[in-house]
Amino acid sequence: MSKDSEDSYVVTPWNVSGRIDYSKLIKKFGLSRIDDKILKRIENSCGDLHFLLKRKMFIAHRDLGSILDGYEKGEKFFLYTGRGPSENLHLGHLVPMMFTKWLQEKFDTFLFIQMTDDEKFLFKNNLSLDQIRKYTYDNIADIMALGFDVEKTFFIVDTEIIKELYPIALAIAKKINFSNVKAVFGMTNESNIGQIFYTALQSVPAVLPSVWAGKNIPCLIPHGIDQDPHFRISRDVLPRLGFLKPASIQAMMIPSLKQDGKMSASDPDSAIFLSDSPKDVKRKIARAFTGGRESADLQRKLGGIPDYCTVFNYYKFLFAPDDDELLDIRKRCLKGKILCGEDKLLLVEKINSFLSDHRKKKEAAAKFIDKVVLTDKNICEAKEKIRNFFSN
Amino acid sequence: MSKDSEDSYVVTPWNVSGRIDYSKLIKKFGLSRIDDKILKRIENSCGDLHFLLKRKMFIAHRDLGSILDGYEKGEKFFLYTGRGPSENLHLGHLVPMMFTKWLQEKFDTFLFIQMTDDEKFLFKNNLSLDQIRKYTYDNIADIMALGFDVEKTFFIVDTEIIKELYPIALAIAKKINFSNVKAVFGMTNESNIGQIFYTALQSVPAVLPSVWAGKNIPCLIPHGIDQDPHFRISRDVLPRLGFLKPASIQAMMIPSLKQDGKMSASDPDSAIFLSDSPKDVKRKIARAFTGGRESADLQRKLGGIPDYCTVFNYYKFLFAPDDDELLDIRKRCLKGKILCGEDKLLLVEKINSFLSDHRKKKEAAAKFIDKVVLTDKNICEAKEKIRNFFSN
Repeated sequence: MSKDSEDSYVVTPWNVSGRIDYSKLIKKFGLSRIDDKILKRIENSCGDLHFLLKRKMFIAHRDLGSILDGYEKGEKFFLYTGRGPSENLHLGHLVPMMFTKWLQEKFDTFLFIQMTDDEKFLFKNNLSLDQIRKYTYDNIADIMALGFDVEKTFFIVDTEIIKELYPIALAIAKKINFSNVKAVFGMTNESNIGQIFYTALQSVPAVLPSVWAGKNIPCLIPHGIDQDPHFRISRDVLPRLGFLKPASIQAMMIPSLKQDGKMSASDPDSAIFLSDSPKDVKRKIARAFTGGRESADLQRKLGGIPDYCTVFNYYKFLFAPDDDELLDIRKRCLKGKILCGEDKLLLVEKINSFLSDHRKKKEAAAKFIDKVVLTDKNICEAKEKIRNFFSN
Repeated sequence: MSKDSEDSYVVTPWNVSGRIDYSKLIKKFGLSRIDDKILKRIENSCGDLHFLLKRKMFIAHRDLGSILDGYEKGEKFFLYTGRGPSENLHLGHLVPMMFTKWLQEKFDTFLFIQMTDDEKFLFKNNLSLDQIRKYTYDNIADIMALGFDVEKTFFIVDTEIIKELYPIALAIAKKINFSNVKAVFGMTNESNIGQIFYTALQSVPAVLPSVWAGKNIPCLIPHGIDQDPHFRISRDVLPRLGFLKPASIQAMMIPSLKQDGKMSASDPDSAIFLSDSPKDVKRKIARAFTGGRESADLQRKLGGIPDYCTVFNYYKFLFAPDDDELLDIRKRCLKGKILCGEDKLLLVEKINSFLSDHRKKKEAAAKFIDKVVLTDKNICEAKEKIRNFFSN
């Protein structure tokens, strides 16, 4: 478990709260920082650097160097990320997905996105599998609206292709005991036996293409840092089954609109949902926590504090990808030349324009869902594609 | 767990050893004895009584009375039993299957036989899923050789139709916590997370026909008493999901050829396997533990002790279904008129004749396997059959 009695924050796959001290967390999890050296290597391979890398939204990694070593020698790898479909998506969910899309384009490779409907059923008390199924397919449409390559993207809905996943999950589960999940996730005697078993399923996509291709294919997992415990387990167990350790690149949690914690579907006012109306957006941003001063006068005099501002975070992580634009916003804020009210109005406009555009793209993406969601019907074809792509 | 520090025996689904005190075990498990009253009711419903009932091989039950109540009022129920396919079958495995076949015929109903390949993989260290798959289909052929109704018998191979089972298993798993499986099965911190989860799968067939038919159908589970812990869990959890408690009728463990314990695939000399050659059979029976005296003279004088004799057990539970025949063997033994050597020779003959006949039937049964094993291909038809049969 990642709860630290000395710290005022909690980071587990099912609970993130408090102001996270990332330096401490990186040390505790045993991660490597995204440093200038690795950024330079990514830039060399990709031609440029995504702004989320430069801005350290993706803050840490495991073995990204090995993935780049292989890539530089012409070795292919695949990408794997995921989503727990227990609610509509909010803007925070899109940020790492957008970065993942950039990785897929730059490295021109396959991406598997696991939709952990089983997990959400086991960990959420008030949701039926039918309700989760609705969120699953709605979330997939939102994700596909970002423009993922329909020829190289597959969604793994756990209950949909469990027949493919289960035998591999059994082999993984056989190598994990209750003490392990107690230590890593803080499972207790009161945890249900589905929750205890579940982590085995989250390791499967890291090796599924290798099983299909009949050879080891390196895997890179872009994910939120809260999911690291699952992949610590993967990295421990998979080599004992003859597979490679998956590498990862880990994002900070997107900060909430409130003072602390991450955006959370369980607190609707903490985030902008993709389904929010222009009015909702206006209301939520109006109430958002900022780095502003007690009065307009004081702010004009002292300037704002963009580093503690949820409004500035939206620019930093989503709406001002251009570095000059971001620097300009920052400077004007620091100098007291723009007040929180104006800044919020501009952001509301940007968000509503984005959401309106997104909804159109989502509608258009609906026709690709049958193609990208793995089912009994299309799985043979998918396997063939993977085998061919990774055969050389 | 069923290990009792005062007792010298252990009974769990994965370990049975020692000389079992069934009176104590029935009390500890909270079972009802098969008594004359319930035997009379079975006889009334079935026209006669199977010799394994009269001889108390089936020794205990849960709620069998309710099943008979319903049946007497014209309410249908279904049968569910199972097999863990980690080895070739031995004669002891056939005994409860033969009784189950009798139940199916007398009550003219559907039977589901679960082949728990996932369980065996999780609990056996040295077996791959591929090896277990071979045993699974070989065991199914052996079971079908007994002549089960091919129109009303379905085999559930867990990994084969896991897509049907998994969502139901998740709902069940959500109601069971680690404390429960610790208390019921003796799971420990060292148990692997697949073992901890597995019991959820064993509850599923008890409700699968109800899920398919969209209405509650009573279930009767004939099984070895060692499996009772799984069904205690089923009876606790299923009503909380809106299903009926499954009823059960429970067999004693078939005694080993050795002095203590049950026949066990892990000790090849403790049982006669269906694949044993006539020579194997002769050797094993020659070495079998009997209720004989120290010398032939003494035995002629004092008589043997059939109640502590593995050879007599074979007559009692398998090869002397006729009560007069069994009584005759018993009397001659008690009076010292037949010695162990002669008795063994007669038994060897009976066993070898049975095995030779069985192998022919097994070969003939092979052509039904595709029909009776549920797969993605035939499951729709099976569901339709179940719906129709239980619709009135």
